[in-house]
Amino acid sequence: MIILVFRCVLKKVVDDTYDIEIGRGLQDELVNDLRNGLTGKKRFAVITDSNVEGLYARDILERIRNAGFSAELFVIPAGEKSKTRHYKEVLEDAMLEKGLRRDCAVIAVGGGVVTDLAGFVAGTFGRGVPFVNYATTLLAAADASVGGKTAVDTPLATNLIGMFNQPEKVYLDIDTWKTLPKEQIASGLAETVKHGCLGDRELFEYLEKNVEKIFEGDAAACEYIAEHNCAVKYNVVMQDERESGLREVLNLGHTVGRAVETVSDYRLSHGEAVSIGTVAQARLGEKYGFISAEDRARVEKLLERAQLPVRIPDYIDKAALVKKLYTDKKVRDGKLRFVFQKGIGEVVQFGENNFAKEIAEDEIAAIIALM
Amino acid sequence: MIILVFRCVLKKVVDDTYDIEIGRGLQDELVNDLRNGLTGKKRFAVITDSNVEGLYARDILERIRNAGFSAELFVIPAGEKSKTRHYKEVLEDAMLEKGLRRDCAVIAVGGGVVTDLAGFVAGTFGRGVPFVNYATTLLAAADASVGGKTAVDTPLATNLIGMFNQPEKVYLDIDTWKTLPKEQIASGLAETVKHGCLGDRELFEYLEKNVEKIFEGDAAACEYIAEHNCAVKYNVVMQDERESGLREVLNLGHTVGRAVETVSDYRLSHGEAVSIGTVAQARLGEKYGFISAEDRARVEKLLERAQLPVRIPDYIDKAALVKKLYTDKKVRDGKLRFVFQKGIGEVVQFGENNFAKEIAEDEIAAIIALM
Repeated sequence: MIILVFRCVLKKVVDDTYDIEIGRGLQDELVNDLRNGLTGKKRFAVITDSNVEGLYARDILERIRNAGFSAELFVIPAGEKSKTRHYKEVLEDAMLEKGLRRDCAVIAVGGGVVTDLAGFVAGTFGRGVPFVNYATTLLAAADASVGGKTAVDTPLATNLIGMFNQPEKVYLDIDTWKTLPKEQIASGLAETVKHGCLGDRELFEYLEKNVEKIFEGDAAACEYIAEHNCAVKYNVVMQDERESGLREVLNLGHTVGRAVETVSDYRLSHGEAVSIGTVAQARLGEKYGFISAEDRARVEKLLERAQLPVRIPDYIDKAALVKKLYTDKKVRDGKLRFVFQKGIGEVVQFGENNFAKEIAEDEIAAIIALM
Repeated sequence: MIILVFRCVLKKVVDDTYDIEIGRGLQDELVNDLRNGLTGKKRFAVITDSNVEGLYARDILERIRNAGFSAELFVIPAGEKSKTRHYKEVLEDAMLEKGLRRDCAVIAVGGGVVTDLAGFVAGTFGRGVPFVNYATTLLAAADASVGGKTAVDTPLATNLIGMFNQPEKVYLDIDTWKTLPKEQIASGLAETVKHGCLGDRELFEYLEKNVEKIFEGDAAACEYIAEHNCAVKYNVVMQDERESGLREVLNLGHTVGRAVETVSDYRLSHGEAVSIGTVAQARLGEKYGFISAEDRARVEKLLERAQLPVRIPDYIDKAALVKKLYTDKKVRDGKLRFVFQKGIGEVVQFGENNFAKEIAEDEIAAIIALM
């Protein structure tokens, strides 16, 4: 029996607008922005990983302290295996131990693992404190800088526990790419090629001409892909901030990609896994007539030139891989769903707000068997 | 050197409006609402605790299943000690294990611990799935039904890890209060008295006349306080959804309250702790002239009649309690801050958007020493 209904009217305009600053050596910009009240806070938790700590994070920490702020450094082990609830808890406890409360802001210095994890930590610390990303990898530039997706992995699925949380600002410091190992550049190129495939034919063709220049650290080429990565992702995200439909296109190559990454127990980097997933998608798409054999071959060729794998390594258990596909977040009512590129530079649309096609298990299993 | 700045414009209108339905036996309403697409989902995770499982949650689970939906039950141990990152993780893993992904919604059935924890689980599961609260305690009605605050406790602080997350709907089933032990009714009355103190003199005076009737389950009295609790909290929250200023007034009594709850290692219930905290606040407020001795005595008297403690138990280490005050989320730049009632039914304002006063440690230590 209803006695009365009390309506809580909660309507508001949310403005999550932020800038992505692309440049070389942006440490002073960061400190100046903090001085000018970017986060509204005077205490900072600098979160980084064991690789980036000595390269950039300690330097940034010192600069923040020299500007008169209080700042503490928190270091997680480098690698995708740190993107867990465990390390989220470790960071939270360390921050609380240092006396940080809601009066702090988080400065993430590192690649996608650091920015994903630190953004999630910031989102639930004191029910949300501001955060800033100082991205030091091409992968972070390509993948983690736009969209506000933060998350951790669990034993049963990658990126399924997390939240949407927009940073106050993102710094893409192209200078830091010079300290990246080749595999890291390659990893970032996987997402860059993916962006070309799904939404930027010009970017794809630029890469076909210039992919080797990225490995050489060519300034113009690095700037070009930093900007185009942001633009592709932004154009998608702006139209669909909550991943209800269009945003799924960014998942191109990630159905098989995420699964093979997990089944490899992270022997494959995220980028390597996405490369394999992108090829699997193109091959299945060719079967459906979404992409020509010629364009599919161009995709594989470009990924190879980006020093990425286009075959599934022998050590992968293919039956386990097929089973793992069902942990994909696009799964709906227990059915696998794939995003497909339409030739190069576009995706296939399957209905209003629907950019993913239901796939029978044996269809993708057949593709995987031959890879 | 800045090369270019890419602006991500993310502005939107968010409508988190929801209904709180107050009534008796609202199980059918819930199932009807789910049928009518309240959450937009067809798979449900019913989250409850070991006390409420047999009383109400299994029944609700069966009703949801009988309506043709898929639903799974997840049970945490009853008590504040379950409001942790550990049980959040246990729930997440169990949900993933059952194959639930972003296609599910969470139905929380229980008191404040269950609704706080389940709301947080829902907020980060698949980066956010909808949730509904079926509240079975007076405390949940008083404290957890309005405001969207979800959180867990950590060894170092209560409620510091969490998020703002609004439910799709809240059901306050007054019928369920009849199975509450007396201490639970008392606990809910602590927050109710607090609401009277800070924003509803009429509610306070109604309780002075009728507090015993709540323990007797008197229908009119239960409805009255359910509604007034919602109204007080809503009026505050509506004006300040992000707790930037006004919302801190809801923290009346919680500075000492939260601390004594933790230091007691949860031997004190949340309500008992808030009762002690409210008295500490009133005594300190009397010293500052914010409340008369007579009104302060009325507060203590009413809390006693609500079967709540107004003295600090002997087993509490008072030095540890004072130290613990610094984990309060209102602490700013290392300084303790208290909210104070102004007589009965109002709070003291200390400046624009500031409802908390900085307190020297020895001032509150002196009050605590005498309690």
